[in-house]
Amino acid sequence: MEKESLLYEGKAKKLYKTSEDGLVWVEYLNQATALNGAKKDKVQGKGELNNQITSKIFEKLNERGIASHFVRKLSKTEQLVKEVNIIPLEVVVRNVAAGSFSKRLDVLEGHPLPFPIIEFYFKEDRLDDPLINEDHILALGIATNEEIQKIKTMTHKINHALIDLFNELSIKLIDFKVEFGKTAEGEILLADEISPDTCRLWDLKTNEHLDKDVYRRDLGDLVPVYKEVLRRLEEI
Amino acid sequence: MEKESLLYEGKAKKLYKTSEDGLVWVEYLNQATALNGAKKDKVQGKGELNNQITSKIFEKLNERGIASHFVRKLSKTEQLVKEVNIIPLEVVVRNVAAGSFSKRLDVLEGHPLPFPIIEFYFKEDRLDDPLINEDHILALGIATNEEIQKIKTMTHKINHALIDLFNELSIKLIDFKVEFGKTAEGEILLADEISPDTCRLWDLKTNEHLDKDVYRRDLGDLVPVYKEVLRRLEEI
Ligand SMILES: Nc1ncnc2c1ncn2[C@@H]1O[C@H](COP(=O)(O)OP(=O)(O)OP(=O)(O)O)[C@@H](O)[C@H]1O
Ligand SMILES: Nc1ncnc2c1ncn2[C@@H]1O[C@H](COP(=O)(O)OP(=O)(O)OP(=O)(O)O)[C@@H](O)[C@H]1O
Ligand SMILES: [Mg+2]
Ligand SMILES: [Mg+2]
Repeated sequence: MEKESLLYEGKAKKLYKTSEDGLVWVEYLNQATALNGAKKDKVQGKGELNNQITSKIFEKLNERGIASHFVRKLSKTEQLVKEVNIIPLEVVVRNVAAGSFSKRLDVLEGHPLPFPIIEFYFKEDRLDDPLINEDHILALGIATNEEIQKIKTMTHKINHALIDLFNELSIKLIDFKVEFGKTAEGEILLADEISPDTCRLWDLKTNEHLDKDVYRRDLGDLVPVYKEVLRRLEEI
Repeated sequence: MEKESLLYEGKAKKLYKTSEDGLVWVEYLNQATALNGAKKDKVQGKGELNNQITSKIFEKLNERGIASHFVRKLSKTEQLVKEVNIIPLEVVVRNVAAGSFSKRLDVLEGHPLPFPIIEFYFKEDRLDDPLINEDHILALGIATNEEIQKIKTMTHKINHALIDLFNELSIKLIDFKVEFGKTAEGEILLADEISPDTCRLWDLKTNEHLDKDVYRRDLGDLVPVYKEVLRRLEEI
């Protein structure tokens, strides 16, 4: 397997072509961003932490029968994944009110929701990733109704698996964001990453933030927090 | 029928109790507002125009079998309606891209949508009426799933009836907002108003704005425009 030309440089990862068709080489970067990129910092060690955390989580999900793009970890900061056409949706699941949900709807942060809520955001930096509904997804041609239903079913399954997994780590899964993509064969796979950058994780006992809110809200250093999540993941 | 104590003073209407249980006396006011009340003006003649337009439209919908709160017109500026508990949703239908839809999703104003899109906004001035999805409606206890489905069915029916009605007036129905309420018996009725304040109406030939956008966008005087809509309604 050879790493070839750069395909895409994002805020958190670089994607490279490989010598094998349909496989992409992902390098996790030492960069933290928030507010759609308006806040940005170099954070030494973040790339390897997220690469290792994401790899572990995708492995665990795979054991639970959840199909993802993940193939294998290549190095501390790199992994091999199946190439997909990302469906431009940020699919958010909320188990407990927090963040923008709490602010927009005036629900106290920490208030448990009666069931896991799914939200779709149109993944379009230029438009600031607006919240949309299923009619919008269909009318804009982002996905078919069949694809939406498939994504919702997969997302609920992922949520249940993640709740169980984090529970084993004494962590409460408050909310998270996932992305899905389509392979050349038309299969829908869970893609991108699942890490403290893309989840809200609260310590089960102390409610301490074990996620990017530490950075977003300037609560302290991100590295020891992400390290703690990785440490707990490596123990099970 | 006697008009009794004031129940509610809104931006466009006053509601009064009546001597008869379950009936409300509505007075349409000479006030125009936009931007959630930030822009506000007294507009002589607006109250009677909207009262007459709304009354005509509810009558026409009634002939088409669409149940609403409307009972009868009482005077130029007043009407009698059934009292309901308003479900705090602004239900928007879009046939053609315009306004906030165009801005948020970068779709050219005037672009026809492939099917009528329904949007739900949480009717809560304090929160600036945020866009929400069906999971939000359920989780916040705004309506049950059965009620949401009923509202969607009624809304599509209203849209079809309104498209036909406005077409007879040489007017294109771009989008509109409706509200629904529940009677004491639990029946869901179309409520509030349907007028150039709550619809985007474009002249079929000239695309001229025949609605509140004239006021929102400072395109001219609102009164002759609303008069033109009423004139066309009275001709059929
Ligand atoms: N398996 C995959 N195949 C192709 N693209 C992928 C795959 N997994 C993730 N991606 C995409 O690669 C990019 C990853 O980079 P990164 O997360 O750094 O992007 P970003 O800065 O968040 O920007 P974006 O708004 O595009 O997500 C994202 O656009 C993501 O959707
Ligand atoms: N049949 C009805 N029974 C009870 N309330 C009604 C009925 N029809 C409409 N309403 C409510 O009466 C008020 C009408 O006033 P108006 O349209 O002026 O309010 P507004 O300034 O737009 O404020 P709001 O944000 O409450 O709509 C609205 O709150 C509307 O929901
Ligand atoms: Mg990303
Ligand atoms: Mg109103």
